[in-house]
Amino acid sequence: MDLANTLKRRIEELSSIGNDPTGGMTRLLYTDSWKAAQNWVVEELQSFGMETAFDEVGNLFGRKEGSESKKTILSGSHIDTVVNGGTLDGQFGVIAAMTAMEYLIDTYGQPKKALEVISMAEEEGSRFPTVFWGSKNFVGEAINKDVEGIVDSNGAEFVSEMRRQGFDFKEKQTRREDIDAFVEIHIEQGNVLENEGLQIGVVNNIAGQRRYTVVLKGQANHAGTTPMGYRHDAVYGFAKICHESIEKAKAVGDPLVLTFGKVEPKPNTVNVVPGEVLFTIDCRHTDADELVRFTTDLEKRIEEISQELGLTAEVDLWMDEAPVPMNDQIVSTIEAQAKKGDYSYKMMHSGAGHDSQVIAPHYPTAMIFVPSINGISHNPAEETKFEDLVEGVKILADTLYELAY
Amino acid sequence: MDLANTLKRRIEELSSIGNDPTGGMTRLLYTDSWKAAQNWVVEELQSFGMETAFDEVGNLFGRKEGSESKKTILSGSHIDTVVNGGTLDGQFGVIAAMTAMEYLIDTYGQPKKALEVISMAEEEGSRFPTVFWGSKNFVGEAINKDVEGIVDSNGAEFVSEMRRQGFDFKEKQTRREDIDAFVEIHIEQGNVLENEGLQIGVVNNIAGQRRYTVVLKGQANHAGTTPMGYRHDAVYGFAKICHESIEKAKAVGDPLVLTFGKVEPKPNTVNVVPGEVLFTIDCRHTDADELVRFTTDLEKRIEEISQELGLTAEVDLWMDEAPVPMNDQIVSTIEAQAKKGDYSYKMMHSGAGHDSQVIAPHYPTAMIFVPSINGISHNPAEETKFEDLVEGVKILADTLYELAY
Repeated sequence: MDLANTLKRRIEELSSIGNDPTGGMTRLLYTDSWKAAQNWVVEELQSFGMETAFDEVGNLFGRKEGSESKKTILSGSHIDTVVNGGTLDGQFGVIAAMTAMEYLIDTYGQPKKALEVISMAEEEGSRFPTVFWGSKNFVGEAINKDVEGIVDSNGAEFVSEMRRQGFDFKEKQTRREDIDAFVEIHIEQGNVLENEGLQIGVVNNIAGQRRYTVVLKGQANHAGTTPMGYRHDAVYGFAKICHESIEKAKAVGDPLVLTFGKVEPKPNTVNVVPGEVLFTIDCRHTDADELVRFTTDLEKRIEEISQELGLTAEVDLWMDEAPVPMNDQIVSTIEAQAKKGDYSYKMMHSGAGHDSQVIAPHYPTAMIFVPSINGISHNPAEETKFEDLVEGVKILADTLYELAY
Repeated sequence: MDLANTLKRRIEELSSIGNDPTGGMTRLLYTDSWKAAQNWVVEELQSFGMETAFDEVGNLFGRKEGSESKKTILSGSHIDTVVNGGTLDGQFGVIAAMTAMEYLIDTYGQPKKALEVISMAEEEGSRFPTVFWGSKNFVGEAINKDVEGIVDSNGAEFVSEMRRQGFDFKEKQTRREDIDAFVEIHIEQGNVLENEGLQIGVVNNIAGQRRYTVVLKGQANHAGTTPMGYRHDAVYGFAKICHESIEKAKAVGDPLVLTFGKVEPKPNTVNVVPGEVLFTIDCRHTDADELVRFTTDLEKRIEEISQELGLTAEVDLWMDEAPVPMNDQIVSTIEAQAKKGDYSYKMMHSGAGHDSQVIAPHYPTAMIFVPSINGISHNPAEETKFEDLVEGVKILADTLYELAY
């Protein structure tokens, strides 16, 4: 079996399902293109002898039984995309898993433990206001009432769309007892590997994140007739908070990141002192205590600066996810393969969220990253050098071999 | 003649012309409500014996000849409003002028020099992309080709709208030789008088202003996967520029003002490091050299900070108006009346633009301010205590008496 050519064909074929005329790929949960993609995965899995099955909600599994054990070594990722996404986020992890397993079975025959591919129904949260629907159902943590009644931007209901594609709620949230390891390969979606000229990232932690929406209120005033001393300038308050705290975040350095991504002043006009500004904060760190300490200090500074400038601040912490460490043993296994195979690699954390963070608390889990050109993802320009994709599949195969044979 | 009651009635009557169902008053150049307002002014002027005349473009004049001289003491303001404006900006200056003059004629008979009211066609720039159309035609500075071809937001043409109301271009831009003084009374549109508990502002200068649009370009990146050291964060660049330069402007203090009114990051999303931000700068000062010095330093800092953070900056200076000093003698005359009449007053500059800045280079000009409650204008909530309006009309009458009798 020609690993590189099979990989290439599979990426091309799967990328043709969900082509978006407005750019890139759009393959949203429970749409027809999503179903077509899962069906394509079924055929590919069956083509090299895997037994396939969907669970109730539409997660797809392909299984090759082990000769000595019912225990399972699992690999895969999610099949859904963002709107106008690229051809690697999610689906590369599914294709890489099946290609690595086909290569192993082709080369070494039946494994001792079962090898299993998972093509998860949903991770992106790009159609309905819910995320990790696939992985949460897999580990038995999904909450049905969270999606009852939710609709997409066209008003289509989650539940009726799920049923339209032949799926339904799990009767009971159960978890499997046979999973010995889960390994997910994914594009980095950042520029660390590229900047450091490396092909492989061995992921030992998924950063925790806290997201805030802050509204500063001051007083809108005429930009010409209001002396500086009489102003309550909300944008000035934002600028002071943003400037000061990014300086601080730079001084703290890796793995802390801090982003003020959205800024919306009112009335947003050249000649009016802004009376209000809404902005967001996204802060991530691999250490739970450090994340809380930094953001708590930041909350305090927002309060202090607001008081100093005669503003009021509404601070809404609407996302608070703790870091998720990867399993030491699986991480070591991957690193050992990297050393043995002389891959160029580094140990690193993931700043982005992944299915692995949902799965890791339940089963020994780790991730492998391949470089993203210019760190771009969630974009039609998402790309990885093909040789880097091949290297990724190879180290995944090496790792699965170590775990299953 | 009862000055206060006449003033009250006139404000009420004129405010009923151009009532906007969406809030406040909207009386845009060459609309029917604009014409109705000018016609109302005609009737009021004629009611106390003034001779009225429109010029070619629709500026309206009401004149009472002097007994000893053909020289003219002129007062007034503009009749147009912004969209959803208040009931004082502009029209208070027209009503105050006619009411003060009626009071003077009623009390003291014919003046020595002519008294003349001007109700200018347009100042706000709120219908067509042109400002000071009224005052510029009055002083012979309007440029016809600047308005040929311009349209309002509904596509109506400036020239056809002008002609529809019975007006047309001046055949030749001429200026009158008889104007001895122009005094404009206006609401402050700021909160200085209110904060200092004063009723009258004697305006000695109209601030110059420079306005910029700046675009900072960096690189949009994933907020989780891009370490602080690999970022080119455009919003961080904005925050540094804004924070630093407002601190500096506060240290310089009055009469310098600096506003960052508009901020528009791209893509403006919580979890993306902003790759671009557009923002505006509005800077004003009464001293031309100081204005240029401060903004030139600011331009330099934008360049330096951009280089430091790996951003590029496009800096567009699209408005550059020099300060306009008021005429010393007219200012002194107003101040003398303020002292004599024991008005609570201060000498101050105007941070906003006014017809007076167009007229001042041609004729001895000064302005009188009355307080704005909460500094609000260009808004249905625009308001001034009625007793402050009365005080304003009284000091205007005192001043016109001094100049014309």
